[in-house]
Amino acid sequence: MFDLLIIGGGPAGYVAAERAGHKGLKALLFEKKAMGGVCLNEGCIPTKTMLYSAKTYENALHGDKYGVFVDNVRFDYGKIVSRKNKVVRKLVLGVEGKMKASQVTVVKGEARILGRGAGGIEVGCNGESYHGANLLICTGSEASVPPIPGLAEAGDIVVTNREILDLKEQPESLVIIGGGVIGMEFAFFFNSLGTKVTVVEMLPEILGGLDGEISAMLRDIYAKKGIEFYLNAKVIQVDGKKVVFEKDGKTQTIEGEKILLSVGRRPVTKGFGLEKLNVELKGNGIKVDEKMRTNVPGVFAAGDVTGFSLLAHTAMREGEVVVNNLTGRNDVMRYQAIPGVVYTNPEVAGVGETEESAKANGIAYRVSKLPMTYAGRFVAENEGGNGLCKILTGEKRGEIIGVHMLGNPSSEMIYGACMAIEQEMTVKEMQEIVFPHPTVSEIIKETLFTF
Amino acid sequence: MFDLLIIGGGPAGYVAAERAGHKGLKALLFEKKAMGGVCLNEGCIPTKTMLYSAKTYENALHGDKYGVFVDNVRFDYGKIVSRKNKVVRKLVLGVEGKMKASQVTVVKGEARILGRGAGGIEVGCNGESYHGANLLICTGSEASVPPIPGLAEAGDIVVTNREILDLKEQPESLVIIGGGVIGMEFAFFFNSLGTKVTVVEMLPEILGGLDGEISAMLRDIYAKKGIEFYLNAKVIQVDGKKVVFEKDGKTQTIEGEKILLSVGRRPVTKGFGLEKLNVELKGNGIKVDEKMRTNVPGVFAAGDVTGFSLLAHTAMREGEVVVNNLTGRNDVMRYQAIPGVVYTNPEVAGVGETEESAKANGIAYRVSKLPMTYAGRFVAENEGGNGLCKILTGEKRGEIIGVHMLGNPSSEMIYGACMAIEQEMTVKEMQEIVFPHPTVSEIIKETLFTF
Repeated sequence: MFDLLIIGGGPAGYVAAERAGHKGLKALLFEKKAMGGVCLNEGCIPTKTMLYSAKTYENALHGDKYGVFVDNVRFDYGKIVSRKNKVVRKLVLGVEGKMKASQVTVVKGEARILGRGAGGIEVGCNGESYHGANLLICTGSEASVPPIPGLAEAGDIVVTNREILDLKEQPESLVIIGGGVIGMEFAFFFNSLGTKVTVVEMLPEILGGLDGEISAMLRDIYAKKGIEFYLNAKVIQVDGKKVVFEKDGKTQTIEGEKILLSVGRRPVTKGFGLEKLNVELKGNGIKVDEKMRTNVPGVFAAGDVTGFSLLAHTAMREGEVVVNNLTGRNDVMRYQAIPGVVYTNPEVAGVGETEESAKANGIAYRVSKLPMTYAGRFVAENEGGNGLCKILTGEKRGEIIGVHMLGNPSSEMIYGACMAIEQEMTVKEMQEIVFPHPTVSEIIKETLFTF
Repeated sequence: MFDLLIIGGGPAGYVAAERAGHKGLKALLFEKKAMGGVCLNEGCIPTKTMLYSAKTYENALHGDKYGVFVDNVRFDYGKIVSRKNKVVRKLVLGVEGKMKASQVTVVKGEARILGRGAGGIEVGCNGESYHGANLLICTGSEASVPPIPGLAEAGDIVVTNREILDLKEQPESLVIIGGGVIGMEFAFFFNSLGTKVTVVEMLPEILGGLDGEISAMLRDIYAKKGIEFYLNAKVIQVDGKKVVFEKDGKTQTIEGEKILLSVGRRPVTKGFGLEKLNVELKGNGIKVDEKMRTNVPGVFAAGDVTGFSLLAHTAMREGEVVVNNLTGRNDVMRYQAIPGVVYTNPEVAGVGETEESAKANGIAYRVSKLPMTYAGRFVAENEGGNGLCKILTGEKRGEIIGVHMLGNPSSEMIYGACMAIEQEMTVKEMQEIVFPHPTVSEIIKETLFTF
């Protein structure tokens, strides 16, 4: 019997398996497709690889700003895609290597919960039966497909994050339904390469949930780069390459060689026997407590299947919480310092309360903000560019409660803000940190100085 | 009478002036040359601007790795230098703007301490006399010129960090005496552009004081890129373009169109009347306590003139400590979490104890390290590249005591490690921070997982 059976080898599953094996648990991981899950194979990693090619292309086009000149800048779309595949393969092998190093048993195949008996929880796969004292469900999520008339009939004109990554050719035009993180990353990618991109968003602003001022700034930057945005626009029909939507009471039609559907993701809770254990759901996802326990003893869930955070790094940490508690370390999942990153160019990164969420939650806050050009290195490395750093503190104690940035490389700087929130650091404590000069990260120190 | 007179408008001086003015002190800042001091005008900022041009050039040359192709990659040396000048001018204006915003009186000219009288400390400048209740000395440092025979005779073949920034043309070959941070940054710059670079270092390794393993890795990377290194090599003579040095008991000679002298910097304590106040020195610098007080009441010193840290960010924080204590906030200078950054490509960044310093100081530590390729984003954005993350913890309590990284963009990631050390965070606390995925910063989390 295994100590821990894990269904799903995405970020929640593979991190939990690695940690479990490392701590001496006998762990088994089922994966039906490719190790690493959606994140590694169809999400975070392939997009970042391709986005870096787009960034490299943009940098080559604009090198003259820095005294560097080239002729005949071009890209090879096929090479961008094949390099993406190579990077994914390398990282999949890396995860497989980690499983070996942590002595995790990996079973490739579609797992199915069979029930619970004297021998523990039983899961079947490829005709074999496996028993575990504990079960961790990490079946992830899949792209939501809303009931828009004509979607199915449009065939392969309509793509999700999965299919768009493997297009053989760059589309001439692309309509993106949904201006969230996934939508905006693809908007950046294709806009950079010269595709005519249109974004149709139902809400009043792109990147819902992030700081509204920064979202608007990013939208403005991309509008100037040629992306057309329709906000408050509700798609009512797809007709071949045509997307019909309603905005301000009027019906409009736009056309794209491809149509990307990026309107959200939903947990995968069906098709693997969840009902055999009577695991309780909440909304679309599996209901869990702060230790990622379901209503059934010995059964845990982590990652997108819980349906509320839908971020790879949340999933990883949730997986760790499960393993820590199983191996004698009391640990609870906290959600107040989960960062959000948009890998556009410039990048957006934020963590904690936004002004919008603080207001909605009745949290008394102070806010301070500075343009990124207050950081000397930003000026040195971003000719003509700008961005914003915005920091929220609790009014009473002066603790950091939110940090939001637009500008490169905020994705790599935001973890320090997560630390500040998680450690409940005050403005005073942050003011005494020595930030290296000259760096973009100093903008955090500068933004805090006037508090 | 002013509350605070400040001599020197470098990072210590301008930050102290800004903070003082903001807190309502009547502050006056003397600057004899250009606001921002060596850092802004002849150091940190101009180098980072030029290094970014070099990086842009390298990226254009190697875009094919990412599916991006160009013809005829070239650079315009004059444009690189003129853009550097433009960035510096912009940032100098920025500092001047900050002085205005904080209502700091700025006096341009060479200040001279005249003494102390009934009206406070008296400083003369441009024939005028100014009185202050307190005096902050931030006169900075200058490049050391060692007593090497032939140096003076070599004329403008020999340059320091100052003159090399304004060369009108790229030298065909460059000998760098001193493989510290400044030496290595210029080595990267000129090597990237195709200059034949040789580094002569007296010590057994470049970048003394940084993690030895990482320094050796960086040296190896640059040796492969064509830089020639001579370690344990003592320069005994300069003869025109020839540098003569002793290594392993043998005398060798190398030649360079230019010779860069980067063997360290020394505090500027002479020429401005320091003796009038009987300010005590320690070594080459002004002696201060943890509140940056000199032996003379009301007289403070901050930045390079204290002679022991010689980093802009140390200077800034020291300036803040002075102002905080003058304005009723008890604050002491701490040096355990001062980061060090080398802006080569790849970058090096580190903070806290190295293995070498921990051993030398008898600190019991544990160490964990991982190649940078364990971070998926690093793989996505650094085709064929590698690096290292190394973390030291105290053996007893498991607190983070040192973090050292080789790989981009470690310069922008290191401040979080400074926070961890300053906050005395333990491995357990750091393990519970959610790092965004996929980022290079995750390497810190991964390196900590096995502790």
